[in-house]
Amino acid sequence: MMEVIKPMDIEKRSFEIITEILGERQLPPENELVIKRVIHTSADFDYVDNLCFSEGAVARALEALRGGCDIVTDTQMARAGINKTILGRLGGQVHCFMSDEDVAKEARERGITRATVSMERAAALDKPCIFAIGNAPTALFSLDAQIKAGKIRPALIIGVPVGFVNVVESKEMIMEAGVPYIVARGRKGGSNVAAAICNALLYQIQR
Amino acid sequence: MMEVIKPMDIEKRSFEIITEILGERQLPPENELVIKRVIHTSADFDYVDNLCFSEGAVARALEALRGGCDIVTDTQMARAGINKTILGRLGGQVHCFMSDEDVAKEARERGITRATVSMERAAALDKPCIFAIGNAPTALFSLDAQIKAGKIRPALIIGVPVGFVNVVESKEMIMEAGVPYIVARGRKGGSNVAAAICNALLYQIQR
Repeated sequence: MMEVIKPMDIEKRSFEIITEILGERQLPPENELVIKRVIHTSADFDYVDNLCFSEGAVARALEALRGGCDIVTDTQMARAGINKTILGRLGGQVHCFMSDEDVAKEARERGITRATVSMERAAALDKPCIFAIGNAPTALFSLDAQIKAGKIRPALIIGVPVGFVNVVESKEMIMEAGVPYIVARGRKGGSNVAAAICNALLYQIQR
Repeated sequence: MMEVIKPMDIEKRSFEIITEILGERQLPPENELVIKRVIHTSADFDYVDNLCFSEGAVARALEALRGGCDIVTDTQMARAGINKTILGRLGGQVHCFMSDEDVAKEARERGITRATVSMERAAALDKPCIFAIGNAPTALFSLDAQIKAGKIRPALIIGVPVGFVNVVESKEMIMEAGVPYIVARGRKGGSNVAAAICNALLYQIQR
């Protein structure tokens, strides 16, 4: 039977059920809200084990967001899902260059992905940025190369592309890049997961 | 190591890997492309068993899309993810009423979800529609009530809300509503899954 519950209580009840299902499984307190929100958005408890956090990643991300940093993402779906009201109040905005015509043109000419070109565009932003990568492993490869070249210094990389080609490798690589990260190890992830992680961070600052 | 592969070949290779992993598991030919695209978007093979299709659902959906039907969805993320270029060429468009101010106002006043109000708005569209529900079980409850009341006759319901409160029940209910459906049984689903199913249908008509 349908549970009769007010709209604003649905999310609260969902988190209670997630907590019940997790049972005695302890989550690191600083990462707990991120992990639970990813489960909330996917109903997939694999993320309890998949999600990897560099030391202090959440604290550093919250500091960056409070300071008004922007978020760069590689999909329009993640852009649509990120809470732009809260981000905007903090002074930040979301960028996604994937559908820009000149990005598509340059990618075709160079025979590379639009995600790679998009990350090069992002390097030109004159602001601290969180990168939320939910689709393209090539975005992570590009970020890694640009970090090594000293062209970019992300406040945080959310590395959650999903899929079967180069996805696993791209995530392992970005965890060695020497910047704060939240990564869903393995094949799983997606735009919804990228947006959920951004929102889990934003909601810790404001609701 | 990173596999060197051209952008346009990544999707093709992904589908090959999915087919390899599925091994001897046979999928119904008419549903195969939908199931594989959902796995492609989630890397979650649970969908092989979760996805339920009413008889002839895909054929009827393709017919509706070829005829220029619209798609109504309950999330901006799904709207962002659906291929609007192909849909537009066929004569259709995507609607999402969730962020409309008057929808939010009416939902507050009546103490119901925005999704419920959004589905009522959709009933007023004077066109055949596919409903792609990736988030709100209340959207499915509303559709069920409106079908029973003879107010709405969906060409297809894609019932893939995700979560922990009323989600499972809403999907079981909509499978009994007497309209064509594609449903992800259980807790899993999401905007990404809703968009992937729409695109799997659209790509069977045009790429």
